Amino acid sequence: MNTLVDLTHIMEDKMPVFPGTRAPEFIDNCTIEKNGFNEKLLSLQSHTGTHIDAPFHIFSDGKSLSDFALNAFCGKAICLEHTIENPLTTRHVNSIHNSLKKVDFVLIYTGWSQYWRTIRYFDAFPVPDTEVLNMLVSYQLKGLGIDTISVDQVKSEDLLNHRLLLGNDLIIIENLTNLRPLLNVVFDFFCFPLHINKGDGSPVRAVART
Amino acid sequence: MNTLVDLTHIMEDKMPVFPGTRAPEFIDNCTIEKNGFNEKLLSLQSHTGTHIDAPFHIFSDGKSLSDFALNAFCGKAICLEHTIENPLTTRHVNSIHNSLKKVDFVLIYTGWSQYWRTIRYFDAFPVPDTEVLNMLVSYQLKGLGIDTISVDQVKSEDLLNHRLLLGNDLIIIENLTNLRPLLNVVFDFFCFPLHINKGDGSPVRAVART
Repeated sequence: MNTLVDLTHIMEDKMPVFPGTRAPEFIDNCTIEKNGFNEKLLSLQSHTGTHIDAPFHIFSDGKSLSDFALNAFCGKAICLEHTIENPLTTRHVNSIHNSLKKVDFVLIYTGWSQYWRTIRYFDAFPVPDTEVLNMLVSYQLKGLGIDTISVDQVKSEDLLNHRLLLGNDLIIIENLTNLRPLLNVVFDFFCFPLHINKGDGSPVRAVART
Repeated sequence: MNTLVDLTHIMEDKMPVFPGTRAPEFIDNCTIEKNGFNEKLLSLQSHTGTHIDAPFHIFSDGKSLSDFALNAFCGKAICLEHTIENPLTTRHVNSIHNSLKKVDFVLIYTGWSQYWRTIRYFDAFPVPDTEVLNMLVSYQLKGLGIDTISVDQVKSEDLLNHRLLLGNDLIIIENLTNLRPLLNVVFDFFCFPLHINKGDGSPVRAVART
């Protein structure tokens, strides 16, 4: 029997968003009393909550979500630790060479999802070393996910890690959660985005199946 | 090697919506030129495009999306024909009793997705007989999907089929497409919705894996 793990933060008013981003709204504009049915108006930026970045997010000639085949959004994944106490090193990446050859996604556990809804979520979270990412993109990966709001620091101006990953046609999944139980395990990963025409990104329900 | 089939209409301006529903907007409000990155503002009703209905859509005490476990949104599915030429009958349902015991979802192929973006999409599409649905809900199904805008006619006031399915805690998936190649096949089906708190429904990327 497979177990599904929800890697997705809940979407609601006052959920954290990247500093400067318009806050999402979930408005009950149709109700059973008034209309005979409940329906919400969703108003949100495409990179709200647990979401995917497509290369088109930062490259005007980059692939958009609708340029990828569906199998770009699912496959085998491995979860690696990159905490303040135990940062991910090129040495560790080398030591799992054989596992990395077999997976489509690397998910990075930093533990930062525990700070979701606090000011600390935005500040000084661990981001992978560019040298580590350089090694990872040498594998046949479809994407890289992380449990922080970004693969670059909030104040980053060069977006070096975004450029490296998206420039190699990987997708990025940000604001993941519940990664800890998956550490060092290989599992099935699903992150099918909304089918937005020429989407630069999409909120997504990210799911692990162990 | 598994094949993925996208059962999802593309989301874009001027996509068809249920008559009376606010049209969705996909606004490029952040651009590389202006902001250094592309990002859209998505503004849409929760039942836009290929989407899920949760029981809370029409029952104030019904389950919302966040009340379901993740495994409510994936499992084995079978696709059955219900066209004007060949309507689905209780006799046919009886004849596939053993298959229905093994699946979690029934997807109904009416062929109506060919009329997406035309006025005919909204008019006189085939909906399953309530008697047929009564038989189907007697199985252990998680949900029922269809390639029309609704399981009831647009002008329906009693929403009898919605009440029957959602009243039995099934989810409904509407506005599916590409069902024809799946007719009478058993396959894996995924329809993980956005993780909207107390969601009455959600646009979804619906996927078959054969």
